[in-house]
Amino acid sequence: MNRRRRIYEGKAKILYEGPEPGTLIQHFKDDATAFNNKKHEVIDGKGVLNNRISEFIFTALNDLGIQTHFIKRINMREQLIKECEIIPLEVIVRNVAAGSISKRLGVEEGTQLPRSVIEFCYKNDSLDDPLVSEEHITAFGWASPQEIDDIMALAIRINDFLSGMFRAVGIRLVDFKIECGRYFEGDTMRVILADEISPDSCRLWDIESNDKLDKDRFRREMGGLIEAYQDVAKRLGIMIENTPERKGSGPVLVK
Amino acid sequence: MNRRRRIYEGKAKILYEGPEPGTLIQHFKDDATAFNNKKHEVIDGKGVLNNRISEFIFTALNDLGIQTHFIKRINMREQLIKECEIIPLEVIVRNVAAGSISKRLGVEEGTQLPRSVIEFCYKNDSLDDPLVSEEHITAFGWASPQEIDDIMALAIRINDFLSGMFRAVGIRLVDFKIECGRYFEGDTMRVILADEISPDSCRLWDIESNDKLDKDRFRREMGGLIEAYQDVAKRLGIMIENTPERKGSGPVLVK
Ligand SMILES: Nc1ncnc2c1ncn2[C@@H]1O[C@H](COP(=O)(O)OP(=O)(O)O)[C@@H](O)[C@H]1O
Ligand SMILES: Nc1ncnc2c1ncn2[C@@H]1O[C@H](COP(=O)(O)OP(=O)(O)O)[C@@H](O)[C@H]1O
Ligand SMILES: [Mg+2]
Ligand SMILES: [Mg+2]
Repeated sequence: MNRRRRIYEGKAKILYEGPEPGTLIQHFKDDATAFNNKKHEVIDGKGVLNNRISEFIFTALNDLGIQTHFIKRINMREQLIKECEIIPLEVIVRNVAAGSISKRLGVEEGTQLPRSVIEFCYKNDSLDDPLVSEEHITAFGWASPQEIDDIMALAIRINDFLSGMFRAVGIRLVDFKIECGRYFEGDTMRVILADEISPDSCRLWDIESNDKLDKDRFRREMGGLIEAYQDVAKRLGIMIENTPERKGSGPVLVK
Repeated sequence: MNRRRRIYEGKAKILYEGPEPGTLIQHFKDDATAFNNKKHEVIDGKGVLNNRISEFIFTALNDLGIQTHFIKRINMREQLIKECEIIPLEVIVRNVAAGSISKRLGVEEGTQLPRSVIEFCYKNDSLDDPLVSEEHITAFGWASPQEIDDIMALAIRINDFLSGMFRAVGIRLVDFKIECGRYFEGDTMRVILADEISPDSCRLWDIESNDKLDKDRFRREMGGLIEAYQDVAKRLGIMIENTPERKGSGPVLVK
């Protein structure tokens, strides 16, 4: 597996050429970054957990008829995906105010929003992923009005699904971020869900205690990140073959 | 005129109770502020110039059938306006990149935009007028989807008119900001143009030299603000009865 071509190395993942044209291998690293890389750490086992959690979610979305790039998990850290043309937007769906929206619009963290709100940020690290509106997106040609509609419809369906899934295991889905891509099949183009959905890209609060079970533990120096991600995996009934601590040599069933 | 009730004092204008219900008097002060009041100065004569320039523009818009709050100018610094319920949005129309969009999206100042772009900022000084999208506006109820459509249609018409007007006198309309309000007539509600349009609220560049003829001269400490505003007034054929310098005692015809 060493001679395969590396296509892209990002902050949390590496993309390798896949076994067939139109496929890629998405490798989950242990790197945690925040504030656009100004804060960076390696957290043992995070990649393994995100690979499994993202697999779990994308599989369920595929089953529901919500098209994603996910084909199958290959090993602890890698999954086979469909290559697509990433639309340079971070699409954020918010149910409860937290993070940047609280600061920008003066809404206290934890406030239920009047309705779910979709935000678009232009995916550009050197500009710090600025918030943009549909006007910017269409004027600069990052996506067409039809694509924006498709993305929003996708985002709302995913929000419905994830809200239900997390609600069932005592977790409040505060917000999450997705990336979408253009996938070409013959001469039809479809907007599909790409990248990952994991505690790195969601805000997840325990419904009872409001404990944070997501990357905010890292952003806010709270510690216990891996334990929180493991908790999420466990609640979803996800088997982790190898615990990050590598206590045993064989597969260990967590749950 | 001293006993009239002051309704609101803003950064650049004061609103007084008008002579009839549903009317207000808008008084233009000489105060110049930027960066949300962090920079403040009094610039002799600015209010007089803005009152005249805004009168000129609003009168022409009314004539064109674009409804505004403007009724008539009362004196050097004051105009009679229709009271309306201000929609808490600063609506920015951009033709050329400058200011915040250049910084946020990495577009060099002076670049012609692929098409005119409308931006909305939430009018809230304590939050520094943050950029918002239609999602935020409708979720928080600042305006309805229909009102957003009306505002955008109004903004585009005004951009067309102003672009032509300034083009005719050798000025490039880079961008401008408007405020809109809800005006009730019997039981119909209409979105109308309120506030002002002046070199305080536009970016105006001389077509030949690219000289700035607007508030950026103040924001960027370039000096010559009054001279620039006078130049704009002169080019538009606007008579200023009293020059800011008060050279004579009687009306002076500038032009
Ligand atoms: N199906 C896909 N096809 C092509 N690119 C993808 C796909 N899914 C995700 N990507 C891209 O791969 C990268 C994943 O690595 P990541 O570490 O998250 O990068 P980044 O630091 O750019 O966010 C992202 O840039 C993402 O846009
Ligand atoms: N027709 C109108 N009816 C009611 N309020 C208006 C009208 N036109 C403008 N306003 C409001 O009057 C104020 C004008 O004063 P200004 O100094 O510009 O205030 P600010 O510092 O709030 O921008 C603004 O807050 C504006 O929204
Ligand atoms: Mg990423
Ligand atoms: Mg104002």
